[in-house]
Amino acid sequence: MKRLGKYTLEFHRPPSLLAQAAVGGKKEAEGPLGKDFDQTFQDTTLQEDSWEKAEAQLQKEAVSLVLGKAGVRPQQVDYLFAGDLLNQCISSTFGLMDFGIPFLGQYGACSTMAQTLLLAAILVESGAARRALAVTSSHFCAAERQFRLPLEYGGQRSPTAQWTATAAGCALVGLGGTVQIRRGLAGKIQDLGVKDPANMGAAMAPAAADSICAFLQDTNTRPEDYDGIFTGDLGLVGTRLLYQCLEDNGVDLQPVHQDCGLLLYDRERQDVHAGGSGCGCSASVLCGHLLHRMERGELRRILFCATGALMSPTSSQQGQSIPGVCHILELVQP
Amino acid sequence: MKRLGKYTLEFHRPPSLLAQAAVGGKKEAEGPLGKDFDQTFQDTTLQEDSWEKAEAQLQKEAVSLVLGKAGVRPQQVDYLFAGDLLNQCISSTFGLMDFGIPFLGQYGACSTMAQTLLLAAILVESGAARRALAVTSSHFCAAERQFRLPLEYGGQRSPTAQWTATAAGCALVGLGGTVQIRRGLAGKIQDLGVKDPANMGAAMAPAAADSICAFLQDTNTRPEDYDGIFTGDLGLVGTRLLYQCLEDNGVDLQPVHQDCGLLLYDRERQDVHAGGSGCGCSASVLCGHLLHRMERGELRRILFCATGALMSPTSSQQGQSIPGVCHILELVQP
Repeated sequence: MKRLGKYTLEFHRPPSLLAQAAVGGKKEAEGPLGKDFDQTFQDTTLQEDSWEKAEAQLQKEAVSLVLGKAGVRPQQVDYLFAGDLLNQCISSTFGLMDFGIPFLGQYGACSTMAQTLLLAAILVESGAARRALAVTSSHFCAAERQFRLPLEYGGQRSPTAQWTATAAGCALVGLGGTVQIRRGLAGKIQDLGVKDPANMGAAMAPAAADSICAFLQDTNTRPEDYDGIFTGDLGLVGTRLLYQCLEDNGVDLQPVHQDCGLLLYDRERQDVHAGGSGCGCSASVLCGHLLHRMERGELRRILFCATGALMSPTSSQQGQSIPGVCHILELVQP
Repeated sequence: MKRLGKYTLEFHRPPSLLAQAAVGGKKEAEGPLGKDFDQTFQDTTLQEDSWEKAEAQLQKEAVSLVLGKAGVRPQQVDYLFAGDLLNQCISSTFGLMDFGIPFLGQYGACSTMAQTLLLAAILVESGAARRALAVTSSHFCAAERQFRLPLEYGGQRSPTAQWTATAAGCALVGLGGTVQIRRGLAGKIQDLGVKDPANMGAAMAPAAADSICAFLQDTNTRPEDYDGIFTGDLGLVGTRLLYQCLEDNGVDLQPVHQDCGLLLYDRERQDVHAGGSGCGCSASVLCGHLLHRMERGELRRILFCATGALMSPTSSQQGQSIPGVCHILELVQP
C-alpha cells in the first residue's frame, strides 16, 4: 500500500470483502431496507434477559452468518476487529468471545464499522492477516438507557434526535473477493462546540466535511467521480449542516450523497425524528443494502464515510462539547 | 512481516520506539518506580475540575512529552492509537483531539498499551504509517467512581482488589529507533468464569497464560530465552494463578517473570492490596521503568504481556463473568 497525499492510504493488492451480513430488529425489518437484511428479529430481546445481552447476540449472529457464507471456520480468521456503543464495549466481548479469534476491541462510536474495516484491510494488505473480521452493533433499548433515558420513563424525544438502530453489520476481509477496498482514510477528531446530546448529527457533520475534503484532495477526485457517497449517520440535521460545511469549501456533495441514517428508516412513517444512528446503522446499511447494490452492479465505486460522536453522558454532564470523527473507505466493484 | 505459527507476527524491518514517556500521580511518584516517570503530579486533579478531565490531561501531557523528546510535530504523525477505561474512552478523545492526528480509538481495558503498540507497529512495518503514536491512561479516582464506588463513600476495599494507577504511558513508533518491536501477538478472549469485580487479577490470569503459551509455542522459545517477561496487571492474586495455569502446561515463568502491577507500588508501605492495575499501570511501567532498563542495557530482550478485563459494571450487575485478554510484544535492544 502507499500513502496518498496527507491522509489517504491506497491499497495495491486490494483487500476485498469475502462475505458480509446485516442483521436487524423489528423496526429495521419494517423500514425501506427491510429486504436487504440477512436476518431480522421480530422479538428484539432475541430471547435474552437484558438488552445488552440481546445486542451481544446481534454481533454473534452477524459473525456466524458471515463465516457460514464465506465457508470459513473461526480458526481461519486471524483477527477480529469489533466495537460498539455500550460501556466497555460489552456486546462485542460477550457476543464474540466464543469464536476464539484474536480480538482487538475498537471504539469509534458510530464510525466503528469504517474503523474496523480500515484496520482489517491494512492487516490483510500487509500480510499480517490472511483474513480479518470487522463487526459492530447497536441496540435502541440498550443505547437509550445508557445515553439518554430508560425507555420506561417515556421521555419526549427532541426533533433533532436520531433513532439508534437495533442492528449489526459484519464483513470478512481477505484477498480474492469481488468488492474491493481500494482506499481508506482515518479521520481527525473535529469539535465545533456542539453540546446537545440530542443532536448528534450536528456534532458529527464537521468531521464528515473535514474527512471528505481531505480524501477528495488527497485522491484528486470530485464527488461526481463516485456513484455514491454515503455518510453514516448524520440524519437530516447533520446532512444539512454537512452540505453547508462543504459549500464553504466549494464542494457540492448533493448529487451523489445519501446518508445511512436517512436510508434505514422511513422518517414519515416510522417516527424516527431526524433519522437513524448507532454503530449498527451504517454497518447494516453497508453490509446489507449498499453491498447488495454493488454486487448487482448498480454501484461500482462508492465512498463509505462513517461518522462517530466521541462523547459519553459523563462528558456531557460535565459541560463538555461533543467531538466527532469520520473514517472513509473507497469501495469498488471492478 | 510474516506470520509465525498460529498467532504470532514477526516484523522484518522492525518498527521501533522513537521516544516514550510516562506520567503519573502522587502515589506513583512515591512508589519504587517514582524516579522512572518523566513527570508526576502531586495534585492529581491536574488543576482540572473533574477526575475525567484530569485523566485527559495525563494523556495530553504524555503525548506532548513524547513529541518533544522525538522532535516531531503532530503533523508528522500519521495515526494515533489511544484508549482508556472510561466510558466511551473520553480521556483519549478530550485529551488528544487538539493534536489533530488521525485518531483510531482502541478498547482493550488494561491491555490497551500492548494493543495500541501492536497496531502502531503493524502500520509502521507495512508502510501505512511513517510514525504512529500509542497512548493510554487511567486515573484512580475516575475509575473508582465509574467501576466501583465513589471515593466519598469510603468503602472498604477487598484484599484481592487492585489499585488503579493514576498514570499514562505513550510511545512513538517509527523506523530507526533503538528499542525494536520484533514480534507481537493479539490474544483471544478467555473466560474461566470469575465473577468478582474486586478480583481482576484472577479474571485476567487465564488470558495471560493462554497468550504466553501461544507465543512461546509459535516462536519455539522458552521463558529463559528472555531477560524478563512482564505481565500487566495481574497483581499478587493473578500472578499466583498465572503460575498455576502455566504449570499445568509445563511452563515455569517464575525465574524471569515480574508483574507491572507489583512493580509500580510498594505493597507493604502503600496499601494497594493486591497491586496496581489500570491501563496506565502497565503503560507507565513500560514507558518509564522497563524502557529505561532496556536503554541502559540491563534488559536486552523482553516480553511485554499486557492483560485486560473486558467487563463493565453493567455486565457484572447482570451476572456475567469477567472475560480477559492478553496481548504480547517482544521488545529487543539489539
